[in-house]
Amino acid sequence: MEELLDKLLEECRGYTGQGRVATYIPELAKANPRDLGISVLNSDGRHYQSGDWHKRFTIQSVVKPILLLQALMDNGEEYVHARVGVEATGKPFDAINVTDQMLRSDHLNPMVNMGAIAMCTLIRGSSYEERFQRVLELTRRLAGDPDIYVDEAVYCSEKRTGSKNRALAYLLQSCGMITDDVEEVLDCYFKACSISVNCRDLASIAFVLASRGRLPQTEERVFPSQYARYVNAVLMTCGMYDGSGDFAVNVGVPAKSGVGGGIMAVVPTRMGIGIYAPALDAKGNSLAGIQVLKGLSEKLYLSIF
Amino acid sequence: MEELLDKLLEECRGYTGQGRVATYIPELAKANPRDLGISVLNSDGRHYQSGDWHKRFTIQSVVKPILLLQALMDNGEEYVHARVGVEATGKPFDAINVTDQMLRSDHLNPMVNMGAIAMCTLIRGSSYEERFQRVLELTRRLAGDPDIYVDEAVYCSEKRTGSKNRALAYLLQSCGMITDDVEEVLDCYFKACSISVNCRDLASIAFVLASRGRLPQTEERVFPSQYARYVNAVLMTCGMYDGSGDFAVNVGVPAKSGVGGGIMAVVPTRMGIGIYAPALDAKGNSLAGIQVLKGLSEKLYLSIF
Amino acid sequence: MEELLDKLLEECRGYTGQGRVATYIPELAKANPRDLGISVLNSDGRHYQSGDWHKRFTIQSVVKPILLLQALMDNGEEYVHARVGVEATGKPFDAINVTDQMLRSDHLNPMVNMGAIAMCTLIRGSSYEERFQRVLELTRRLAGDPDIYVDEAVYCSEKRTGSKNRALAYLLQSCGMITDDVEEVLDCYFKACSISVNCRDLASIAFVLASRGRLPQTEERVFPSQYARYVNAVLMTCGMYDGSGDFAVNVGVPAKSGVGGGIMAVVPTRMGIGIYAPALDAKGNSLAGIQVLKGLSEKLYLSIF
Amino acid sequence: MEELLDKLLEECRGYTGQGRVATYIPELAKANPRDLGISVLNSDGRHYQSGDWHKRFTIQSVVKPILLLQALMDNGEEYVHARVGVEATGKPFDAINVTDQMLRSDHLNPMVNMGAIAMCTLIRGSSYEERFQRVLELTRRLAGDPDIYVDEAVYCSEKRTGSKNRALAYLLQSCGMITDDVEEVLDCYFKACSISVNCRDLASIAFVLASRGRLPQTEERVFPSQYARYVNAVLMTCGMYDGSGDFAVNVGVPAKSGVGGGIMAVVPTRMGIGIYAPALDAKGNSLAGIQVLKGLSEKLYLSIF
Repeated sequence: MEELLDKLLEECRGYTGQGRVATYIPELAKANPRDLGISVLNSDGRHYQSGDWHKRFTIQSVVKPILLLQALMDNGEEYVHARVGVEATGKPFDAINVTDQMLRSDHLNPMVNMGAIAMCTLIRGSSYEERFQRVLELTRRLAGDPDIYVDEAVYCSEKRTGSKNRALAYLLQSCGMITDDVEEVLDCYFKACSISVNCRDLASIAFVLASRGRLPQTEERVFPSQYARYVNAVLMTCGMYDGSGDFAVNVGVPAKSGVGGGIMAVVPTRMGIGIYAPALDAKGNSLAGIQVLKGLSEKLYLSIF
Repeated sequence: MEELLDKLLEECRGYTGQGRVATYIPELAKANPRDLGISVLNSDGRHYQSGDWHKRFTIQSVVKPILLLQALMDNGEEYVHARVGVEATGKPFDAINVTDQMLRSDHLNPMVNMGAIAMCTLIRGSSYEERFQRVLELTRRLAGDPDIYVDEAVYCSEKRTGSKNRALAYLLQSCGMITDDVEEVLDCYFKACSISVNCRDLASIAFVLASRGRLPQTEERVFPSQYARYVNAVLMTCGMYDGSGDFAVNVGVPAKSGVGGGIMAVVPTRMGIGIYAPALDAKGNSLAGIQVLKGLSEKLYLSIF
Repeated sequence: MEELLDKLLEECRGYTGQGRVATYIPELAKANPRDLGISVLNSDGRHYQSGDWHKRFTIQSVVKPILLLQALMDNGEEYVHARVGVEATGKPFDAINVTDQMLRSDHLNPMVNMGAIAMCTLIRGSSYEERFQRVLELTRRLAGDPDIYVDEAVYCSEKRTGSKNRALAYLLQSCGMITDDVEEVLDCYFKACSISVNCRDLASIAFVLASRGRLPQTEERVFPSQYARYVNAVLMTCGMYDGSGDFAVNVGVPAKSGVGGGIMAVVPTRMGIGIYAPALDAKGNSLAGIQVLKGLSEKLYLSIF
Repeated sequence: MEELLDKLLEECRGYTGQGRVATYIPELAKANPRDLGISVLNSDGRHYQSGDWHKRFTIQSVVKPILLLQALMDNGEEYVHARVGVEATGKPFDAINVTDQMLRSDHLNPMVNMGAIAMCTLIRGSSYEERFQRVLELTRRLAGDPDIYVDEAVYCSEKRTGSKNRALAYLLQSCGMITDDVEEVLDCYFKACSISVNCRDLASIAFVLASRGRLPQTEERVFPSQYARYVNAVLMTCGMYDGSGDFAVNVGVPAKSGVGGGIMAVVPTRMGIGIYAPALDAKGNSLAGIQVLKGLSEKLYLSIF
């Protein structure tokens, strides 16, 4: 396996030159566009890795399925679904998904910024700091890594420059979908996006979703299998933004990308995959990362279709 | 004339029962929906009035043409036009006028909230407090009333509840159309909307626009005639939100309404009109106010078409 | 006056080089982009003209106010207004003005293709050929020119290539706004657009609107003054498509442009103006034509604002 | 298995009363809303069925994946993908998916009417009648039923009343995406939608997709496995219109519904399922049919997530 990963990374390294590192959060612009790494946690319980798999980057939108999981664990499926729908928006990640000046819960999607911000209000906690701590704890537990922390520089950078997310949050408030203090909700969201991870962490988290709620090694159940099906289904239809359709055709597994350059891919019952390649395509997905996944899917027949 | 006004008000009083007082700013909900007043400043230099013309209410969107005037006086036509366009949006007053997730200056209009907020950034001043003071001074001068003040209760109410305007302002910032602190810009905007006026004030302001920049009595020129044409033209095409087309057909003069219940109507070369009737129609325009203007236009052949 | 017109045309001739002749109807592409002509019918009853005022071109969208007039004359204001609204669409001339997949009558505007096609169904006649003949007769009467005819080559060219208008018409049918045979309705519309006129014709038609329904010379009333106010108001807010706001600011009179290169401008109580300059700007309005009108408005203080 | 199917149908029969038979094609309104049937072709090669599985109905949108397959078989993946994209539209089945008055190939989706109509132009044939015959032949072959025919009454009904589809087709032409005669393209589309099938046919077709291109019994390969993955992926993200997200969460297999009341569900490597229940939900999907599939998915762990 590790040979295969090395070979794939070599083949795909050229693609890193075709993408561009995200710059809308100034701190992200410091990433090295040439970085490329992968980690795979297989159903045999072993980690396989290659390239820059150990480099740390911020989780960004890859935290969205974790926010969704925490909301499901705190409230159940019905409650969450009634507040944030699961249909594809057909629009970019930061879409103002307001149709004809109206916003309804079924216009939201947990994998798109607006829905993910709303998701923060569904997580339990006496304060938004506590809600964030619970998300961080869940992330650590799923990744099996108690040392995961927040990248304060990225968090501050996002907080300072996040006008678009602020606009989306105030829109939610104006439609009655946020009743708490908007700045506190955003703080929780910005901190969650700034959690620092590496490929191995993402592979481990993906593995728990692939094994429908059980941790590797101990096989301890963290959440009911139906929540895994819920999250995996949403990842399949919307995890790669308005590139989800192409990804379904070309790779064929549930996945989530982040503008930090990470991709987490879930191969149900078989494996969890974490990738890092911060040069992005026009839709905000890791460009070389998608190529690596496409190659891996072809080689190992990963597509679930 | 005063007889005519009395008669018209009597005929139209029934319409006050068909509208609803604005409630999205809690303080506005305290208005009496039965109130109805009018003031006309004629080219003979005389004020004619009837009904609740002396009652004070907040100017709300009727301040938009004054913001536009101040911006024109501070920067000239070309500069302002390049930053906030003049085409109708075809959408409600608080529209998120983002087409396909992009926002361009020609999507903005100074009579719609988003454009009016952008307009605040075009007014000169070393601080947003100073910018607001200049708007207040201009309002006092146009109205010929140095005692005009800000209704602090409404201002605080708007500031506290203005999620939608906050969303619009952060959207402007995310597109680079606001580079200053959003909360300061909004503060200027909320204060300007909270200026307390009566019908006589609005009639006087309208008269200056009708006489293309000259004050009544002294005939002192406050601004070049071309700025009056600019403002009047924009009022005609967009002053009554997405009811502007109907208003042009039925009344036929430039006018601006506000959710406080005020309407300011400009009859070029002939008169300025101020109306107060806080019960609004579905588009946010004073319902009975439009009926009074329709009647007056028919009786006095006010339509410019 | 004629001296002034000659001088203006000379000054504006350069602008003809900046526009482009319409090509989406193949036959229109044959026009000479350098052509520039004007005709003015003044309240003194005299025609003044300059340049290529005698050249014939197809009326195209300038027929829209005539369709509206005929519909008003056949059904009255209330009936027409309930079927085709008068609010600005905020979109281009051939807009698919469907908001959130729904189409309502107040999304239509008689000066935009979709509304104008719907307008054809409101004109009386036992067949669509008869409806068209009535429109042609009205055009001849308003222009005072019984020889006005249809340019068959343009009509056939439009009929063959009008996919977008066909799409709009079938959309209207799918929403129940056209119940007749779509191809017959379109035939009426395409023929109406293909009426061949010159500047003098447009000036005469505009004059009837300026004199609120009375023919020049005889002063015979063709339609009630309120219909003129209706049409002029709609021209002011929407006659120049999504350039109407700019036109209101810069010229300040009701006007209608067509992709054939014509502009008809109405100066209420004072004059009717016809212009021909087939090189268009990006919004489909005669580029040099607007410049001539801007100059004329400044020289003669034509703005009604 | 048949016991399970009988039990499920009994449990779900009540849902047939909550939906409504499609009426926009008059002929469809004749269906019996109480009908409910299912057929399953299992990987053991056996058909299991229950209820009204033998009743015939028109295939309607369930023909879309067959059109896509034929286009892929005729042109390859790259060619087809460049002309009709695969991203979710986030809109209803008959959406006018024009963003900001522009239409691009990546706004289209083969499972939404506009994209499916465009798909007809990608199928080979010297005439549109021949293209349709090839689609019919493919349908017969996939279903293993040489007697499948066109329901002429439904075809004529659709042809007569299909204004919305006509509008969509002319829009495609106006954007250069259809260069052939629109009525001929539509004829092919309407005929394809009017193919008459039963649950057993749909189960057989689904089975070929589930076995990635091989016919049951003979295991003869009809198309490359990658085309099955392409089609199944598109079905998963968009096969149930703007209910695809919910379906992915609740059922978790690729599927396609039609307004005739049919649903075809593909369980990769395991089974093909055909369902008939003509009473539809608000999104145009078979209401009871979805409930049956939800129950079956829970009982047999069909979800691929």
